[in-house]
Amino acid sequence: MPRNAVYAQSGGVTPVINASAAGLLLTARQYPVHFGRLFAAQNGILGVLNEALIDTAVLSSRELQQLKNTPGGAFGSCRHKLKTESELRRLLAVLQAWDVGYFFYNGGGDSADTCLKVAELARAANYPLQAIHIPKTIDNDLPLTDCSPGFGSVAKYVATSVREAGLDVASMAASSTKVFVLEVMGRHAGWIAAASALASRHHAEPPHLILLPEVPFERARFVAAVEDTVARYGYVVIVAAEGVKDTQGLYLSEAGGKDAFGHAQLGGLAPNLVEIIKAATGFKCHWAVADYLQRAARHIASATDVQQAFAVGQAAAQLAVAGQNEVMVSIERLSDEPYTWEIGAVPLGMVANIEKPLPAEFISADGFGITPAARRYLLPLIQGEAPPAFIDGLPDYGQWSWVTEGAKLPPYRP
Amino acid sequence: MPRNAVYAQSGGVTPVINASAAGLLLTARQYPVHFGRLFAAQNGILGVLNEALIDTAVLSSRELQQLKNTPGGAFGSCRHKLKTESELRRLLAVLQAWDVGYFFYNGGGDSADTCLKVAELARAANYPLQAIHIPKTIDNDLPLTDCSPGFGSVAKYVATSVREAGLDVASMAASSTKVFVLEVMGRHAGWIAAASALASRHHAEPPHLILLPEVPFERARFVAAVEDTVARYGYVVIVAAEGVKDTQGLYLSEAGGKDAFGHAQLGGLAPNLVEIIKAATGFKCHWAVADYLQRAARHIASATDVQQAFAVGQAAAQLAVAGQNEVMVSIERLSDEPYTWEIGAVPLGMVANIEKPLPAEFISADGFGITPAARRYLLPLIQGEAPPAFIDGLPDYGQWSWVTEGAKLPPYRP
Repeated sequence: MPRNAVYAQSGGVTPVINASAAGLLLTARQYPVHFGRLFAAQNGILGVLNEALIDTAVLSSRELQQLKNTPGGAFGSCRHKLKTESELRRLLAVLQAWDVGYFFYNGGGDSADTCLKVAELARAANYPLQAIHIPKTIDNDLPLTDCSPGFGSVAKYVATSVREAGLDVASMAASSTKVFVLEVMGRHAGWIAAASALASRHHAEPPHLILLPEVPFERARFVAAVEDTVARYGYVVIVAAEGVKDTQGLYLSEAGGKDAFGHAQLGGLAPNLVEIIKAATGFKCHWAVADYLQRAARHIASATDVQQAFAVGQAAAQLAVAGQNEVMVSIERLSDEPYTWEIGAVPLGMVANIEKPLPAEFISADGFGITPAARRYLLPLIQGEAPPAFIDGLPDYGQWSWVTEGAKLPPYRP
Repeated sequence: MPRNAVYAQSGGVTPVINASAAGLLLTARQYPVHFGRLFAAQNGILGVLNEALIDTAVLSSRELQQLKNTPGGAFGSCRHKLKTESELRRLLAVLQAWDVGYFFYNGGGDSADTCLKVAELARAANYPLQAIHIPKTIDNDLPLTDCSPGFGSVAKYVATSVREAGLDVASMAASSTKVFVLEVMGRHAGWIAAASALASRHHAEPPHLILLPEVPFERARFVAAVEDTVARYGYVVIVAAEGVKDTQGLYLSEAGGKDAFGHAQLGGLAPNLVEIIKAATGFKCHWAVADYLQRAARHIASATDVQQAFAVGQAAAQLAVAGQNEVMVSIERLSDEPYTWEIGAVPLGMVANIEKPLPAEFISADGFGITPAARRYLLPLIQGEAPPAFIDGLPDYGQWSWVTEGAKLPPYRP
C-alpha cells in the first residue's frame, strides 16, 4: 500500500534548496507503488504542527523545472526548535491523520535535529515512518558530507563579487578609496569567507585579507596587514565572516537579537572594521554587506551545486524506496580533479547539531588566507554556470500561491 | 597629419566603462589618417598631469574584446577637480609635449567639468585640440542623454538582487525575518533605487517600499507603511538610496568623510533604517549594503547597456573624425517599445556639473514607488544578458600591467 509523504524546508534558505525539492518530487512521482500523495508542509516543521499541507500534485513538470531554478524556499521555511512534549504529540497526531509514511526534511545541522526528533518520536510510538534528511546549508558546516548544497553557489557569488569589486577598488585607489571590506555570512565556520579566495589568481589579486571565525581577531596585527598590503599593492580588499571574534571570544559586532536557536543575530561587522582601519590609517574606505543577496543569488549559481542539490533530493526518494530511515543523504568526493562524487547516506544521529569548522590545514599560517589544500577542496564546487531563464531582463522565477489541504484535526494551540 | 589622442577614465567606475574604451580604441584604429598614437592616461586626468601615458597599441584585438567585458576602470580612474592655474598650465604642457590633438574623457557630470576645462584651456591658448566627453555614470544623472552607460547594468543587478532576496525573505517571514532593507547608491538622484521596482511584477512582490533622495523621509509615515505592508503580505522589502534625507534636508546617515568634490561620503543608512524599524515594531530585520558590488557586477550586465557603452565610445572617435569639439556623446531615445535609440552630441557646457534628478512624474503619489511612466522609461535599459566568458568557475576578466611612456617633461610638482 503506498503511503503519503511530507517534504519540508527548514532553516535559512539557499539559491538551490528548491532544486532539491524538484529532485525529490520528480523522483518520488516515479514510484507510485511506494508513494501516495506528496505533500509539502508550509513553513517547515511549523506546517506539520499547523497541519498546513500543500498537495504538490498541483505542480506540472514544467513548474517543477521552474522550481528547480528558483531561489528561496518555495514552500516556506522556518527556524523552529522542537522543544515540548505537546509539540511532539501534535506532530505524531498530524502524521497519523494523514497517513504519512515518509518524512523528508531539507535543512542544515539544526534542522537535522528536528528530523532526528521526528524519527525518534515515531519509533517510540511504534508509528511506521521513514525520516530522511536532505542536506542544505550555505554555511557548508554539515559533517560527513563533502559539501552542503547551497554552499557552492554562495561561494561562486562571493568569489565573483570580490573579483569584480576588487577591479573597482584597484581603479580608484590612486586618488580615492584604498580599502574595501566585504562582510559575508558564516557565524561559526569560515567556509564562505574562505571561498572568496578563489577570486585571487595570484598574490596581488583580491581578496588580500580574509577574516575567519576560526582565527581570533587581533587588532594590531590586522592593521599592520592592512598597511602592508596598501604599501605593496596600493589598495586592500578584505573579506570578513560575520562571526569574527576577538581574542576574548567576543563577536566584533552583534546586532543585538537572537534567533530561535539562541544564536546571536550578527551584523554590522564591516562598518566596525572600517572604523578600526580609518582610525589607525586614515585611508578612505568602502564596505558592503552581502547578507541575503549572497544566499539568494540563483542567477550566478554553480552548476555543480545545482546538480548536487537536485541529486540529494532524488536520492532521498530512492533511499526511502530502498527502506532507509533516520539517515541524511550525503555527497562523497571520489577525486578532486576531475571532480567526481557519488551519493551516500549517513546516520542522522551523527550529523544533528554538529558543526564542521574549517580544518586547521585549510587556513594559511598568518590566518589571513587559505592553503593550497583548501583551494583544491573548494575549486570544484563553483564550477559551471546554470543561469535561470530570463524574461523582460530579469530572472523568470516561479511565483506560487499555495492552497493548503483542509484540516483533519482541531487547530493546534501550543 | 595624424595627431595623437589621449583617453582617460574618470569618477566612479562602472561595469561597462571599459566597453566604451574598447569602442573608442577599436574605432580610432580604423582612422590612421586622423589618429596617430592612442594613449590612455593612467588614473584619469591625474595621468595627464603626471605624464603617465599608456600606449594602447600594446592591446591586441582579442584583449580589446576582453577589455569590453571587464568591469572597473582598466586604465585607472580618479576623483580630481581641476582647480589651480598651475594645474592647467601643466596640462597644456603635457598635451603639447605629446602632440595631443584629441582628448577623450569618459565620466559623469563632475568629469564633464574637467573635460570642459581642458577644452577651454586649449582654446584660450590657441592650442588645437578636440575635447570629447564620453558619458558614463551609474547614477544616470547626466542631462541631455536618454541614459548614462553603466546605469542599465546596475539597474539590472539591483532589480535581480531584490527579486532574489525578496524570495528569501518571503520564505522565512512566517517565523523569522520580516523586514529586509537594501541600501543602494544614489547620492542626489534616486534612479538606481527607482529601477529596483522593475523586480515587482505586481503589488505583492518586492520591493514594497522605495526610499528616494527626491522624497523627504518622514519617520512616522515610513513606519506606518512598513507595518501596513507586513500586515498585508507578511513581510516587507525596502530599497533605500544612500542619499535619503529627512525633512530638514539632513542625510539619514553620513560616514563622515568627504570626497575630492566636497560631496559627503555616505554609508550606514541601511542599519539606521533597521534601528528605526526595530524600535517601532520589534520585527526581526536584515539589511544589505551593495556598495561596490552593484557597480562592478559585470556578470549580470544589461546587454543593452553594454551595447550603448560600446556605441558611445565608437561615436566619440567618429565625432572627432568629423571635426567636433567640446561635446558630449549622447543617446537619444526614439521609442520605448521596441526600444530604439540613436547617437547624438550635445554641447559640453550644457552638461558639466548639472545633475538630472528623477522627474516628479516618475515618483508615485505616496513617494514610496514609481509610476508607469518610470517603468516605461526604465524597462528597456535592463534588457538582454551579456555574460562574460567564465574560466574555472569565475568570470575571465582581463589583468593588465601597464607600462607608461618615458616622460618628456620634468616631474609635476603641484
